[in-house]
Amino acid sequence: MKHLLTTKELTRDEAELILELTGQMADAVSGREVPKLPTLRGRTVVNLFYEDSTRTRTSFETAAKRLSADVVNFSAKTSSVSKGESLRDTALTLQAMGADAVVIRHPAAGAPQRLTQWLDGAVLNAGDGTHAHPTQALLDAYTMKQRLGGIEGRTVAVVGDIVHSRVARSNVWLLSKLGAKVRLVGPPTLLPANLEEWPVEVAYDLDSSLSDADAVMMLRVQRERMNDAFFPTANEYARLYGLDERRLALMPDHAIVMHPGPMNRGMEIAAAVADSPRATITEQVANGVWVRMAVLYLLLTNGETA
Amino acid sequence: MKHLLTTKELTRDEAELILELTGQMADAVSGREVPKLPTLRGRTVVNLFYEDSTRTRTSFETAAKRLSADVVNFSAKTSSVSKGESLRDTALTLQAMGADAVVIRHPAAGAPQRLTQWLDGAVLNAGDGTHAHPTQALLDAYTMKQRLGGIEGRTVAVVGDIVHSRVARSNVWLLSKLGAKVRLVGPPTLLPANLEEWPVEVAYDLDSSLSDADAVMMLRVQRERMNDAFFPTANEYARLYGLDERRLALMPDHAIVMHPGPMNRGMEIAAAVADSPRATITEQVANGVWVRMAVLYLLLTNGETA
Amino acid sequence: MKHLLTTKELTRDEAELILELTGQMADAVSGREVPKLPTLRGRTVVNLFYEDSTRTRTSFETAAKRLSADVVNFSAKTSSVSKGESLRDTALTLQAMGADAVVIRHPAAGAPQRLTQWLDGAVLNAGDGTHAHPTQALLDAYTMKQRLGGIEGRTVAVVGDIVHSRVARSNVWLLSKLGAKVRLVGPPTLLPANLEEWPVEVAYDLDSSLSDADAVMMLRVQRERMNDAFFPTANEYARLYGLDERRLALMPDHAIVMHPGPMNRGMEIAAAVADSPRATITEQVANGVWVRMAVLYLLLTNGETA
Repeated sequence: MKHLLTTKELTRDEAELILELTGQMADAVSGREVPKLPTLRGRTVVNLFYEDSTRTRTSFETAAKRLSADVVNFSAKTSSVSKGESLRDTALTLQAMGADAVVIRHPAAGAPQRLTQWLDGAVLNAGDGTHAHPTQALLDAYTMKQRLGGIEGRTVAVVGDIVHSRVARSNVWLLSKLGAKVRLVGPPTLLPANLEEWPVEVAYDLDSSLSDADAVMMLRVQRERMNDAFFPTANEYARLYGLDERRLALMPDHAIVMHPGPMNRGMEIAAAVADSPRATITEQVANGVWVRMAVLYLLLTNGETA
Repeated sequence: MKHLLTTKELTRDEAELILELTGQMADAVSGREVPKLPTLRGRTVVNLFYEDSTRTRTSFETAAKRLSADVVNFSAKTSSVSKGESLRDTALTLQAMGADAVVIRHPAAGAPQRLTQWLDGAVLNAGDGTHAHPTQALLDAYTMKQRLGGIEGRTVAVVGDIVHSRVARSNVWLLSKLGAKVRLVGPPTLLPANLEEWPVEVAYDLDSSLSDADAVMMLRVQRERMNDAFFPTANEYARLYGLDERRLALMPDHAIVMHPGPMNRGMEIAAAVADSPRATITEQVANGVWVRMAVLYLLLTNGETA
Repeated sequence: MKHLLTTKELTRDEAELILELTGQMADAVSGREVPKLPTLRGRTVVNLFYEDSTRTRTSFETAAKRLSADVVNFSAKTSSVSKGESLRDTALTLQAMGADAVVIRHPAAGAPQRLTQWLDGAVLNAGDGTHAHPTQALLDAYTMKQRLGGIEGRTVAVVGDIVHSRVARSNVWLLSKLGAKVRLVGPPTLLPANLEEWPVEVAYDLDSSLSDADAVMMLRVQRERMNDAFFPTANEYARLYGLDERRLALMPDHAIVMHPGPMNRGMEIAAAVADSPRATITEQVANGVWVRMAVLYLLLTNGETA
């Protein structure tokens, strides 16, 4: 592996290697007096963010620092990008400055892929348009493995605004590759057009999708992307596709509730559900640091200096 | 001590311990070839700023780095907070990412207190609304101790816009606890309503408040918070409550002039006064780094590895 | 040397020392397992940027980190500067916090010079108005030395919007001092008024300026600074002063094409020229890190601990 662009192109072996390394990172660092590894000392990781995302940027930054790398935050909003510099010239600049890895978030699908043409270093996709967000899917898979004992054979319902969700896409490819059954649940207007190409089941009704689910993944409602005509109010969305306590009771006792954050409490997820012990939301955030350490480690050392 | 939220809740012993540690930090680092201590290596300090403040953020960042901690700047303006995430969910996120300490500045009084409910790590209040700014008061107290030889029995005049000033509040509680007499000086419209609960004297006239003051603390005029009706011009404010050379001459020879910065030169303080040797403004900034090192050290190690 | 403010005030010996150190930095770090030097451990470098410039800021930040310094980014846009703080008070604040070096970018010519009055530490000019950008000229000179084998006796054409360009000014002084012949090429409206004081030749026609040039330095067109009356369209500018493949063919075979970036491809430089092996644009960026390491090293250690 040289880059991490999508989960679709990961082999099952690669995905499992990352999840195994994730556990090793957590074990190696947790509870230590100095919770750092010297692995990437002297390496430079650049966070190249064309969209605001303190959560994801901070998670990558923390992961890189726990591996002793130097981190440079390159916000495209205050950079020469605002003077019209192309992605290519920005890439060549970072390359010339000696970036060993570039973590990129970009509103255009495919931008991370294009970046690989111009960089010798590793490219890590931290979210590109509605296309992919592979480290999110990997941390979700790691969380399921921990909570459910495995992924093979489990049923995962992904609920809400599928069409605009890179989180949903990355989870579909990763979880199905790892042997899970993935069920997309949402209104027809928020489901993608080419669903026959996806390894998924589709459902429109949430209540009837819960009884056999091992995990339910609630997606953030991206209000800015929605047409008001479909959901005139938050209440209406919550009534049809929100996870409240009544619906939580329809799920098996062992089933978990996931959310990539940030949550709209009271909209796609009720506050009581978000705070229930069956919700894994903060575990997902914690696992995000370990997963990103694993990926940075793997891409920057080729697994050589484990 | 687990958190630093206000000076009001500090015991006198705790306050004196912090001031003593402050001096130790200054001694341990000043003049060294490599002015850093390894004390907090591997610890993560998050600066969570909901209001812009490069001065205070930079001071905390410098302090944390001198203790070898990793620092992550989490600007709430460019974060998921702007997508409507609650303070609680932001806290849970930082907690999950492994923050050992969160330095928070927030426009709402009480936000740091609320943060402590959701974090295992230490919370350091870097200013919350008009409520408290404890490290500012501690650095002011340390500066007085250095310049005046002590705080017990000294008279400190705090001048200007008291009602909107968290700096004034934090100084009132800290300095009175340490045995100083605190006199608030300002127009009735800029004094708080519940003054009978405060351990202070009140005066409305500046000239007659200076002859027995050991220290005069000029507050920044916060124009954006003031009603133009009271002070139609900067000149009018300066005439009534500005510290100029004539007024400086009314003070005892040993008395010092303090200001938390940033100053409005020519408004609450004349340029010649700000630059006089009796002004302690840059010493206050320098002491801010030592005080924040002391507090970070105390909260993150429980004083164990002195 | 205590500061780096302009190339005009550098002696030839100082300039050559910096270029020699630049090569040593590149050699010392390139290809190492951990590409860092411990030289500036514990020193604090503050990036004080009053204008956005991720490229230059990132280059200085990378350079400082490769020397193991701590870096604090102090963006004037989100600081107390926006509350009206003067440059002087900001300087005194940074001084008090213990800044060992301040890298400043400012829209006003002379701001870095003024900063030196108030700081004990080193001041590095990262661009002040249309006045100077000395590290850019030094990295350009280093690039020429590498590519052309030397600077003495070489002819360098600097093309475009000279009047607004601090890059042009800094190169004029540095390159002429190092023995190069500098030719400014541009329309009269974009040439400065006091040219008789500059050690340069002047030409208005680009085609006839290329046949004897060893290096051609294309300046960025700063659209925001231009009067639309002169160049109604980008095409018109490109036709008169853009470097395209036809013009590249007019240059000697060994001659190189330089650009400080970010480029307006298709305007001052054609894409095919920017990407040709004769263009040194990414080498310039790479050399920028070495040159800034050299300058930081020189100013912060006085060359003592080579």
